[in-house]
Amino acid sequence: MAKSKKEVLVLEDILGSNKKLAASIRQKLRENGILAVNLLSSPGSGKTSLLEKIGFCLKDRYRIGVIEGDIETERDAERIRKIGLPAWQIITHGACHLEAKMIARIFDRIPADLDFLFIENVGNLVCPASFDLGESLRLVLLSVPEGDDKPRKYPEAFITSQVFVITKCDLLPHLPFDVERVIREAREINPKLEVFKTSALSGEGLEELCAFLEKKLEELRRQNA
Amino acid sequence: MAKSKKEVLVLEDILGSNKKLAASIRQKLRENGILAVNLLSSPGSGKTSLLEKIGFCLKDRYRIGVIEGDIETERDAERIRKIGLPAWQIITHGACHLEAKMIARIFDRIPADLDFLFIENVGNLVCPASFDLGESLRLVLLSVPEGDDKPRKYPEAFITSQVFVITKCDLLPHLPFDVERVIREAREINPKLEVFKTSALSGEGLEELCAFLEKKLEELRRQNA
Repeated sequence: MAKSKKEVLVLEDILGSNKKLAASIRQKLRENGILAVNLLSSPGSGKTSLLEKIGFCLKDRYRIGVIEGDIETERDAERIRKIGLPAWQIITHGACHLEAKMIARIFDRIPADLDFLFIENVGNLVCPASFDLGESLRLVLLSVPEGDDKPRKYPEAFITSQVFVITKCDLLPHLPFDVERVIREAREINPKLEVFKTSALSGEGLEELCAFLEKKLEELRRQNA
Repeated sequence: MAKSKKEVLVLEDILGSNKKLAASIRQKLRENGILAVNLLSSPGSGKTSLLEKIGFCLKDRYRIGVIEGDIETERDAERIRKIGLPAWQIITHGACHLEAKMIARIFDRIPADLDFLFIENVGNLVCPASFDLGESLRLVLLSVPEGDDKPRKYPEAFITSQVFVITKCDLLPHLPFDVERVIREAREINPKLEVFKTSALSGEGLEELCAFLEKKLEELRRQNA
């Protein structure tokens, strides 16, 4: 949809400076051997529940921190702290996505000796996709109740992610959701997507996902060596 | 989160001209006795399914048209046409919400003798809330799988709506979702919210919702008389 020239210029400005700042954040994190993972999805797709499970799975062997992005409330950070992980809440007060500058503002509070830094973005399958936060890995989540037609309808999140996590697979018996179709359509948009079928309730797919994250951390460390 | 002065000015500009245009759209629609209803929710909350059911329920007695807002694809408009209703697709090509100017561009194609004009916004619980489209009634949908903690986390959509529709209530036996809590928290944000518990699958609550919409149309017509 056409934007005015002024709108386009301001948007380019914002995205340009965001990109630069994100690149410097990524460099610092990678130098410290930290794998930063940005999680994108609609509200209620299960980002926090997935993080709770990943946290449980990895916390005995790795140092993990979580940045929680929300428009209002500190509810998600509280859930993460309950499982014994440090969580930093960014409240955007209306803004529909996180930006690199918000990460930069709290950067000093993030311990340099982390292994994993998970960033849970604002629940929104659209806008967060345009903003690099300095992550090394981007995960897009889609839950079974949202429907198998979403990758084509919301392509940007799938184009810019390396990993596609299907969540709430325990609900498959109750809902018309074609797993093969959703994977096929997602890979038509982005053929390189790694796909995981998961359920935070039944535990399905979580071990595989955690093993993949560990492999990615090792790769990052090898590149540093 | 602080925006630059330039960003704030451009945003005020956009919202200001959107508001003016929306007011003139609303006036024209109301003069024609058309009740325009703007539907807001996350992707996959069931906006199109609800519209299909409302369409079935009302189409023998009323003239109904549907505007479908999507980032990509004409899938939703095709679903609506299948039940015999006219549907106009607005593809936003990346934009995360509908704006009044997008409605204005297709306004000439909307028959003046409609009773109901439903506008299905882009699937996004955040940004569409800031853009008046000239509707007389705004419905926010939240599906049971999204979780009962969403009104406080995404307040703007609940503040600016008159109606809160809980969808996919057939899934209540399978999910931890406290209906009383979600209604209480939504009404703490907006005490005037009308609430409907619905399921497009079982049909729960649809008759009540349709009767409410008919009542709202009658009110609009009485104000015109």
